[in-house]
Parts: sequence; C-alpha cells; structure tokens
Amino acid sequence: MASIKKRTVNALKLCGEVDKAYTKQVVKTAKALRKMNNVLILSHRSPDGDTLGCAFALCRGMRSLGKKATVKCADEIPEKYAFMREGMEEQTFEPQHFVTVDVAGAHLLGSLAEEYEKKIEVCIDHHLKNTVEAPVKFVDTDAAATAEVIWLILSAMGVPMDKEIASCLFAAISTDTGCFKYSNVKPRTHLIAVELMKYGVDCAGINFKLIDEVSQSQLELKKQALGTLEYCCNNQCAIVTVTSEMIEQTNASPEDLDGISNIPRSIAGVECGITMRQIADGWKISVRSSEKVNACELCGKFGGGGHKAAAGCKFSDSYEDAKKQLVDAVSEILK
Amino acid sequence: MASIKKRTVNALKLCGEVDKAYTKQVVKTAKALRKMNNVLILSHRSPDGDTLGCAFALCRGMRSLGKKATVKCADEIPEKYAFMREGMEEQTFEPQHFVTVDVAGAHLLGSLAEEYEKKIEVCIDHHLKNTVEAPVKFVDTDAAATAEVIWLILSAMGVPMDKEIASCLFAAISTDTGCFKYSNVKPRTHLIAVELMKYGVDCAGINFKLIDEVSQSQLELKKQALGTLEYCCNNQCAIVTVTSEMIEQTNASPEDLDGISNIPRSIAGVECGITMRQIADGWKISVRSSEKVNACELCGKFGGGGHKAAAGCKFSDSYEDAKKQLVDAVSEILK
Repeated sequence: MASIKKRTVNALKLCGEVDKAYTKQVVKTAKALRKMNNVLILSHRSPDGDTLGCAFALCRGMRSLGKKATVKCADEIPEKYAFMREGMEEQTFEPQHFVTVDVAGAHLLGSLAEEYEKKIEVCIDHHLKNTVEAPVKFVDTDAAATAEVIWLILSAMGVPMDKEIASCLFAAISTDTGCFKYSNVKPRTHLIAVELMKYGVDCAGINFKLIDEVSQSQLELKKQALGTLEYCCNNQCAIVTVTSEMIEQTNASPEDLDGISNIPRSIAGVECGITMRQIADGWKISVRSSEKVNACELCGKFGGGGHKAAAGCKFSDSYEDAKKQLVDAVSEILK
Repeated sequence: MASIKKRTVNALKLCGEVDKAYTKQVVKTAKALRKMNNVLILSHRSPDGDTLGCAFALCRGMRSLGKKATVKCADEIPEKYAFMREGMEEQTFEPQHFVTVDVAGAHLLGSLAEEYEKKIEVCIDHHLKNTVEAPVKFVDTDAAATAEVIWLILSAMGVPMDKEIASCLFAAISTDTGCFKYSNVKPRTHLIAVELMKYGVDCAGINFKLIDEVSQSQLELKKQALGTLEYCCNNQCAIVTVTSEMIEQTNASPEDLDGISNIPRSIAGVECGITMRQIADGWKISVRSSEKVNACELCGKFGGGGHKAAAGCKFSDSYEDAKKQLVDAVSEILK
C-alpha cells in the first residue's frame, strides 16, 4: 500500500502542484486524522455548502476507514444540503477527537463554541483570518473552497473516493465559487472537479439545487426588494431596501436573503451596489463594489469593514439619515 | 515543427481523450483551414458568446498564421462581447473561403443566408441537428460549446495561444455552460478551461459580464414579470407573463428577455415552469420542466417542440384561453 507521502504527492500532481512545504502540511494533517477514532467534525454556524460538504465528506471518509465519526453543527442543516448525509447511519459514541472544517474562528461554532473551542485538535480551513487554536492547523488561503483541501487530505489518507464523498466535495466547491464563477477559482479547482466527476456526481443537479433553485418566499422577497430599487450618483450607485415588514410578510428565512445583496451591483454601469436591511435597532448595510469603489474603506467610515469588493456596516439612524450618509460618502468617492 | 496529427493527439491527450475517428476529423478540419487565405468566418444571427467567441478566436488564430480573416454576423454584436474584437484591425479583402461556427443551419445566418449558404466550405458546430451543407463538416454533439472544438482545431493548426484567443474561447464556454453549471459540462470542458487560464484570462470578469450583469431594463422587466407570477397544479406549475406593454415600457431588448423563462422552473417544488410572452399575433410559450414533465411532449400538443426539459409553442388565442389550455395539459400530466 502506498504511503501517505506518496499518495499526497500523487494527489498534488493531479492538481498540477508540487510544493514541499505544502506537501508536508497535507501529510501531517492526514496522519493526525488517520490516528483518530471517535471523531466529532464541527461545521460553522449558519452552515453553507462548503462547511457541510467538507464535514460530511470527511465523516464518510473516516467511516470508510472503519472509524466512528459524526458531524455536528450549531444550526439546523438547510434542506438543500440534506443529500450530503443521505444513507448515513446514526452512530452513538463518546467523541474523543475534535476537528473543525471551514471554521475561521471558534466563535463561529455558534452555540457549540463554549463546549468545544478548547478541544479542537485539527482545524482545516481556507479563510484569510483564521483564529482557531489547534495543534494541527491547516489553513490554505489559496483554496477557493476548504473542500479542495479536504480532497487532498482524503486522497492522502487513502480514503477510497465514491459518489457520495465526491458529491459532498463538488457541492462544497460549487457553493464557494458560485459554480466556478468567482475570482477565487484556480486551475486546481477545475482539476479537482474533473477528478470528482469520475465518480458519477450529478453535478448539474447539485448546481441547480444550490445555485438556481429559489423558494417561493425568496422570490417574493426579491420582487418586493426590486420594487425599492433606486439609482443615484449618475446611475453609478444603486440601492435596494429590505424592510422587516417585507421579511415578515414573505415569511423569508435568513437564507432567503442570500443573493439579494448582489442585485444592485450586478446592474450594468453600477460601480457601487448597496443593500439596506432593516434590523431590530436600525439598518444593516451590505456594499458590493467594482474597482472604482473600495467597499471596505466606505464601510470603514461607518465603523464597518470587510473586503475591497464586499463589505458591511450598521446604522442606528433613521432610514433616510442612514441612506443620506451612505450616498454622500459614495458621491465623494465617485465624484 | 510538429505535424498537425501530432499536435492534435497532444491536444486530445490534454482533454483526456484519444479516439482515432475523432482525431481524423480534427486533423481534416485543421488542414482545410490551414490551406485557406482571405477567410470570412460567419456567426449565427442573434449572436451569443459561443458563436462570437468561436468566430473571433478562429479569426485571431488565422491572422496569427499570417492569413487575412474577418468575422461577419447578420445582427449587431451586443456590447458585452465587444472585448472579443478589441484591438483587431479592420482588414479589407475579397473573401475567398467561408467558414461557419456554431451555426446549426444556413437559415441561422439570418440576412446573410442567401449570400453565403451555398459557399460554406467548413462548418464547425456542436448542435444535435445541423443541416448546414459543407465539404468539411465537423459537428461534435458531445461538446458543451463549439469553442471546445475550436480549441482543438486551433491547437492542431499550431496557432500560438494568447490571452485574447483564450479569452474568446473561455467566454464561449462560459456562455454555453452557464459557467460550468449545466449537464452538458464534461471533464473536457474543465480541462480546456484550465489550459485557457494559463494565458491570463480574466475569467471572473468575463463571467460577471456574461452571466451576472443585467441592464436596468432587464431588471425592471424582471420585476414586472415577477409581479405576474402565479402558481397552479398544487404549486407544481408556475407561470410568468411578459406583455408587449412591459417590453415597451421597460425598453427591453430581445436579449433582456434572456433568463426570464428560467425563473418559474427555478422555484423549489415547481416541476413545470411556463413563460407566456405576448407577440404580434398571440402568445409565445416557453416551458422548462423537471423529469416529471416532458416539455417537448407538452408543447407538441400545441404544435410546438424542443427538448425534454425545455420546449416552446405558440398560441393565437386570447391570453386566458391559451393559459387554460396549457394549465389543463399540465394538470393532466401532473395529476
């Protein structure tokens, strides 16, 4: 049987990468995981396709090696990810080892943080700022999805790939890349997808469910939000508003809000797209921007932050006041 | 210098394919193109990213081999594809050879059909039913985009790949696969993308422009169309209506109608999504369906046709009459 090192080198070759330091990290993580039994794999709160796809792929992989393993998440798993755990038996055991996947900080374990944050032994992630404390920490900020790293680790561990594991990993990659659409996609992302496709993954079906499918509430909320669309700064800035009343009336879940904040920026000619969402004590602002506007700096003026192209902040002012301050700041930038 | 045969075999290896008959077709087409000079490359009417990406990639490739070549299309090239011809000089010459790309039938040349349909020498395409008559006809129905075939042919011809050609081909693939989302995506599709990425293509920028970006008119039309959304057949069928008044009022172009017909089917639980668009003499119907409903059979009942999951038909009846007939037919299927 091939060694972990050998398998790692082969997997890395498939992705067109050979880097000694990186190989070492994969080997170290794979070795740590292979030594474990009775493993609890933790996903982040408000779980998405990457954290869940990684967790279930790793869990299935551990089990295929004869280990006991299970997945835990503070929040309920949305129905669209239910396929990831389909057919998995319930396993009851006293967890002895703790692994986090796609969790950038212990607080993101949500209600599970207190119980587990001191116990994490292996942390696998791709977020730029990862504050988890763990003896084995493998954070690859070049990976478009944590699932790319999990694929390497499973390959290194000698886990036999199958349709179920491949489907979890494909869904994770599709989620975090907007189905190969975003700038985080690297050649490696496509190459791993090719490897996963060999196992009969229903890629188009997964993509439809994760990317295209909307709930009735989500579509109704979108319609109402579109009704509030307004332009300013010579049509270079567009603003969409989501009120508490809309959320209540459409019975929208937090998930249903996904995607709305991308609408204003997607309009041709718009350099800065703003979404204003009513919250208990004011307005939560999401900014999406082109290269002309630094969203992080803009939100920074109001105590918020984020990335250059996507950032956020909060206002406890009235709607009109909050909007005026934002529009003034954008005008200043775009003048 | 490597032979055409050798280059073809290498390109096919990169896509993980080695098939003698297929290799022969690539070689034959590449040889035919290499022999030509003063070439007119024809795209289909209402041009999309695939037909234009193929045309400009091939044109740039021919020129890089010292040939005169230009692209012609019956309809205007939408602004979002303008980057494909950026920096290309105008060449005036009397065309001696004629090539079609992504054109399934001579009538799809639109107003250019009459002039050129008898002159086509090379036809490169991927559509299931291709009726073009040409001495060299290379139709690969397995290709997700005609651009996959063009990539192979350019490789076989020994055209040096560059950022511009790679960008055209990437845009073409992204268009026809919904950015790697649809069921037509094969391992080869991803592998060719990886090859193209090596030349510095701004993949995310192209994807944004082609997939996400919407015009103000398009978004306004979408909002109005969403306002007409209605459910029937126990929420398993959803109908969206686009009236002539909406199109006029939003100043929407035919392109702006893109995407609207996918809305109803994308709603969770909907097996049959219907879009009714008002036309001069009645209603044009687009049907998108899950496996439970055969859209082609449904539309066939009303003299239309298409594919299992996407089909269309026309009604010259009143709105209410047309809708009733459709809903009755869907109810019958879903009962």
